Amino acid sequence: MTVNETIQSLLNHRSVRDFKPQPLDDQTLATLLEVAHQGASSMFLQEFSILSITDQAIKDQLAEICGQSQHQVNRNGHLFVFVADQYRNQLIASQQQVDTTLLHETDRLLGCVYDATIGAQSLITAAESLGLGTVVLGSILNDARQVIQLLHLPHLTFPLFAVAVGYPNDLPEQKPRLPQSVVNFTNTYQLPVDFEAQLDAYDTELQSYYEQRHLNPRRETFRQSLAREVVSSPRHRRELLAILKEQGFLEHDR
Amino acid sequence: MTVNETIQSLLNHRSVRDFKPQPLDDQTLATLLEVAHQGASSMFLQEFSILSITDQAIKDQLAEICGQSQHQVNRNGHLFVFVADQYRNQLIASQQQVDTTLLHETDRLLGCVYDATIGAQSLITAAESLGLGTVVLGSILNDARQVIQLLHLPHLTFPLFAVAVGYPNDLPEQKPRLPQSVVNFTNTYQLPVDFEAQLDAYDTELQSYYEQRHLNPRRETFRQSLAREVVSSPRHRRELLAILKEQGFLEHDR
Repeated sequence: MTVNETIQSLLNHRSVRDFKPQPLDDQTLATLLEVAHQGASSMFLQEFSILSITDQAIKDQLAEICGQSQHQVNRNGHLFVFVADQYRNQLIASQQQVDTTLLHETDRLLGCVYDATIGAQSLITAAESLGLGTVVLGSILNDARQVIQLLHLPHLTFPLFAVAVGYPNDLPEQKPRLPQSVVNFTNTYQLPVDFEAQLDAYDTELQSYYEQRHLNPRRETFRQSLAREVVSSPRHRRELLAILKEQGFLEHDR
Repeated sequence: MTVNETIQSLLNHRSVRDFKPQPLDDQTLATLLEVAHQGASSMFLQEFSILSITDQAIKDQLAEICGQSQHQVNRNGHLFVFVADQYRNQLIASQQQVDTTLLHETDRLLGCVYDATIGAQSLITAAESLGLGTVVLGSILNDARQVIQLLHLPHLTFPLFAVAVGYPNDLPEQKPRLPQSVVNFTNTYQLPVDFEAQLDAYDTELQSYYEQRHLNPRRETFRQSLAREVVSSPRHRRELLAILKEQGFLEHDR
């Protein structure tokens, strides 16, 4: 394998959920924020914003929304919320008397999510290259309406996920991924003929990882983990289409 | 600023649209594909797949869809298509007689887009760290239905974007981004009081970049570029909500 410092860092990724109570210094923070905006941008619309959550009361409320066991939300080095943002572009376009219908359409929500997630992964990669730990918190979607209120998010914005960064208290073992043959294809979508056998082998590998890891060990295969995640979801997460439309997204499409 | 090799590479990003006709070697390709699946995964559902397009006829058809001037689609070192994928998870869950309603909901489409884009940005960062050039091609959405047919994408999958990677023929200058004060906020969403003045300064900076760059120079500000992008869109890009629903996504939400 072709490996350099950057690739080694990417291959070494694991999510950290236990941080020292040490804030990031200003220089590191400035670097991470700069890196986050240097990635590719769909149609160069630069359609996301980042909120740094420094107010402990807001962090505590976000932790409440994310779930009681999610201490990484209010105990970390820094908490970023990544926001899909066509509000800024609509403001600029409106001042030029340009029709902004397209900014409300599905295409442009996807553009926001691409841009924001590219920015987040750049920030995460930079942070990890500095020895920091990171975790992506999709759990802010447990109550997106409350997050929108809490952070005063205007129309045509939407809180996609948070990223907590900090000095790790403890580094988890690396979680094995699905075998390459069931996630990478050539030319057309085609699961391998031995899909079940590949999945059996992966279930054995993942179960062994879960049993042997020093943090929160448990007995579970990939099939079981998937079945558990698929059967239930917090109530407000099942209203995300409605909430996106309330914010002005996914409108006007044919 | 805190800078190491990885951060330098991230800060140095630019999109490359002119590649030498030299394919990636197998080792580099294997590295990039491995890196792409090591990122964070929402609920650990690993809900995306990557198609490597090696068939020149398919590349040519994708280039047609993306637009006639998009030579980077069929002339590059390698072309990856990133696919939102709940098909694989639905197959696994169904075999366990688990209700898969949630896999069709908005929450899980967002999860797919997060996972796929994290994977793509890791792949891009790894490629750029090796001196390769990259470009994200959202333009495959100009006709998503045709892409779905062409790549035999099953129900509950969706082609989000492509990424072309290769040896650059020519390295563009770096495009200036919006000022940090209009994209990064603290605790609540709040554009700065001098937003217009900041935008004026940025318009001057970006216009100067467009005028002076050696590839495809033109005279345009950010406000003008935004107005141009916002006023029109290829017909099928305005049908993405319908196409996503045809593929089984964004269903069942309250």
